[in-house]
Amino acid sequence: MPSLASTPAADPIDALRAIGREFHGRGWSLGTSSNYSVVVSRDPLELVVTASGKDKSSLGRDDFVRVDAGGRVCDGSDRRSSAETLLHCTIAQLVPSAGAVLHTHSPWGTILSGADLPTGQPVGTLRIAGYEMLKGLEGIATHDTHEDVPIFANTQDMEELSARIRGRFAGLDFAAPGRPPVHGFLIARHGLYTWGRDLAEARRQIEIFEFLFECVARSRTLPAARQHQPQ
Amino acid sequence: MPSLASTPAADPIDALRAIGREFHGRGWSLGTSSNYSVVVSRDPLELVVTASGKDKSSLGRDDFVRVDAGGRVCDGSDRRSSAETLLHCTIAQLVPSAGAVLHTHSPWGTILSGADLPTGQPVGTLRIAGYEMLKGLEGIATHDTHEDVPIFANTQDMEELSARIRGRFAGLDFAAPGRPPVHGFLIARHGLYTWGRDLAEARRQIEIFEFLFECVARSRTLPAARQHQPQ
Amino acid sequence: MPSLASTPAADPIDALRAIGREFHGRGWSLGTSSNYSVVVSRDPLELVVTASGKDKSSLGRDDFVRVDAGGRVCDGSDRRSSAETLLHCTIAQLVPSAGAVLHTHSPWGTILSGADLPTGQPVGTLRIAGYEMLKGLEGIATHDTHEDVPIFANTQDMEELSARIRGRFAGLDFAAPGRPPVHGFLIARHGLYTWGRDLAEARRQIEIFEFLFECVARSRTLPAARQHQPQ
Amino acid sequence: MPSLASTPAADPIDALRAIGREFHGRGWSLGTSSNYSVVVSRDPLELVVTASGKDKSSLGRDDFVRVDAGGRVCDGSDRRSSAETLLHCTIAQLVPSAGAVLHTHSPWGTILSGADLPTGQPVGTLRIAGYEMLKGLEGIATHDTHEDVPIFANTQDMEELSARIRGRFAGLDFAAPGRPPVHGFLIARHGLYTWGRDLAEARRQIEIFEFLFECVARSRTLPAARQHQPQ
Repeated sequence: MPSLASTPAADPIDALRAIGREFHGRGWSLGTSSNYSVVVSRDPLELVVTASGKDKSSLGRDDFVRVDAGGRVCDGSDRRSSAETLLHCTIAQLVPSAGAVLHTHSPWGTILSGADLPTGQPVGTLRIAGYEMLKGLEGIATHDTHEDVPIFANTQDMEELSARIRGRFAGLDFAAPGRPPVHGFLIARHGLYTWGRDLAEARRQIEIFEFLFECVARSRTLPAARQHQPQ
Repeated sequence: MPSLASTPAADPIDALRAIGREFHGRGWSLGTSSNYSVVVSRDPLELVVTASGKDKSSLGRDDFVRVDAGGRVCDGSDRRSSAETLLHCTIAQLVPSAGAVLHTHSPWGTILSGADLPTGQPVGTLRIAGYEMLKGLEGIATHDTHEDVPIFANTQDMEELSARIRGRFAGLDFAAPGRPPVHGFLIARHGLYTWGRDLAEARRQIEIFEFLFECVARSRTLPAARQHQPQ
Repeated sequence: MPSLASTPAADPIDALRAIGREFHGRGWSLGTSSNYSVVVSRDPLELVVTASGKDKSSLGRDDFVRVDAGGRVCDGSDRRSSAETLLHCTIAQLVPSAGAVLHTHSPWGTILSGADLPTGQPVGTLRIAGYEMLKGLEGIATHDTHEDVPIFANTQDMEELSARIRGRFAGLDFAAPGRPPVHGFLIARHGLYTWGRDLAEARRQIEIFEFLFECVARSRTLPAARQHQPQ
Repeated sequence: MPSLASTPAADPIDALRAIGREFHGRGWSLGTSSNYSVVVSRDPLELVVTASGKDKSSLGRDDFVRVDAGGRVCDGSDRRSSAETLLHCTIAQLVPSAGAVLHTHSPWGTILSGADLPTGQPVGTLRIAGYEMLKGLEGIATHDTHEDVPIFANTQDMEELSARIRGRFAGLDFAAPGRPPVHGFLIARHGLYTWGRDLAEARRQIEIFEFLFECVARSRTLPAARQHQPQ
């Protein structure tokens, strides 16, 4: 296995540190929440992922670990990777083109993913429809569409959650040309996962999803009775 | 045709790059959304406009193209101009004094332009009335007035949208002295267009409209039953 | 009359320029809105006030004028002072201790000052009660009190508005020791005026009022039916 | 008694000054509100705490005093410590592991702590349940729990409030291993107190509580009738 320093991972680490500073400043990665990864090898699958419990506003070069497809640390260090490492690996396996995976904890994502759940068991989908900004998600070329963002019930059991994600995404073809079947998912009252071919694309999709979450949530607070004066 | 470097357009490009950084930071131009232009020639009409698909937080000097009145690239480059270039050209033609056109995607503009549409077909007008800040729009000298911001249904067909804009603005005299008949328009669930004699004026109007959109939208969330204690 | 450069006004100008940059950044002085002044002489009364129509994010040293008690320019320049100069002079006359007057246009102040007006004629008072942060207003030493912020109907006639302010403040003793009778006022759908013995105190009161406006307005959006679990 | 300069307190002061700048910028410590402390000695108990009435955006090295367990200044200076010093001392006594105490005045904390009080007498508890971000509070390892944040009625009598806090916390074992029984408390329409083994932990908990307050408050503004499309 190549050392971390001799691979492109040397650059991804600085890029992920910049993501941490930015996302903390924008309120999406407070405290030690969130975790980020970059795929540094496809065969065998290996990712560089944030270490467990680090403050995202001041990530150091040592606050990352390299893991294999099963989420096991494979860089010889004794650092612990993020508790949710397995989800990063699961996404990287399900989405062949994924080069980076970002997970954030924003207010709007947290609120929307937990809103109005009839049974206390958050399941289902957040539908985002009709916004021009949907075109910021990879492969979407019109506002006249919708994105159904899966919402998974939260758990601390990553094996179990990983299995649920695999179940729900079974049959989706992420290798097909054009628009991917899904661009991300929410964990209820927890946060957002999205990914991209590279870190820039994943970052852009975080930004786009956050914008859309804010629009959807704020729109719900407007009274339905007030209407435009149509012409 | 003069080269880009030998015209005033050299400066506009740096000014538009600064606009991009600022508007991204203020949440009005996330991802690759938004597009900006400056009129660099009136006879024949030519604009410098952002190239297609660029991240507005980090526009480079090459992320712009020069287009003619029909929106065709005329600087000899093979760059593609923004998909909405034709709207910039249409505005520049309809408003003889326009020296800059700015288009942004803000949460409040997106929300208000799509709020409470009875039929799913966004048409009509957003009326903004009685605010002192209306005086920030060119030619308005009192709060005791209103601005009717046209809202156009969104589309991906710029020829069709351009024709609708021309139809709605037919008969409006943008060359008359004093207050212009319209200072901008919204595209539903999409964003705002405004313009100014120069970039500073267009930027100021973006700022003013954003303020007014926020006030109108937030005011709608306040319960009507709570009232001042009149004296 | 001493020149501007040989008086303490030289420093106030830089202080007011810093206020402009800060308040623009915080969203309280967008576009050319807002105006600020410092009392530079009490006998005779003279103020340095922002010139008319200047962008508050980039005030230059020449964007100020010196005016007398009647709001007339008295520094020999041909600059025009802010349209609302007379209100600054009126406040400086009514409040003997006032060393600085700040006027801002914030979203929350604009929204609250225009909310829920039964007749379309904004009159009355905004009561702010029970907040610890009230102690940030000069002379208030307990949360167990209220501040009644006068709300004046907006107008473009400063002589008329000045007379209304004088009428409402008649009989209030701003020279009495302890808590002043009023710390500021709102103009409906327009903005806030406050003042202080110096610019630092006036700036602090803007900050405090803005906080209180936000708390009052956001509290109104919370449904009354949801309650704490009392213990 | 060792001088301030020869103890670790020299560093805490700069750390607290940085906290002030940061928290002012984030809107949690406006004007002269808020106060912060670090435990610099456990036997006897001594704290360095912000002096009374200082602007938190620009704390100087002299804007702190050293106090004993009773809140009395013990550094030989004639500076006055913050009016709420006694609460810092009470917390440091009740929580043996506390190395730093932070008190902030944020909009969301102020609003939630005073929301929907049936009798005007704010008592009770704010329950925060089911959020992943709860794991940012020391010792919490799952989202599937709740934090009951005590809300105390506000007062200017710190002796009385200190006694109420002691009464409510009587019987809670803050020395037990694992999750502490309480991570902070609110004073109604006033603000938040939290603490940590060191300043970094206390700062992180402020950040986490603020996030949770925002989520709880904003969630209440969403209409309950709108629901996900469950799958």
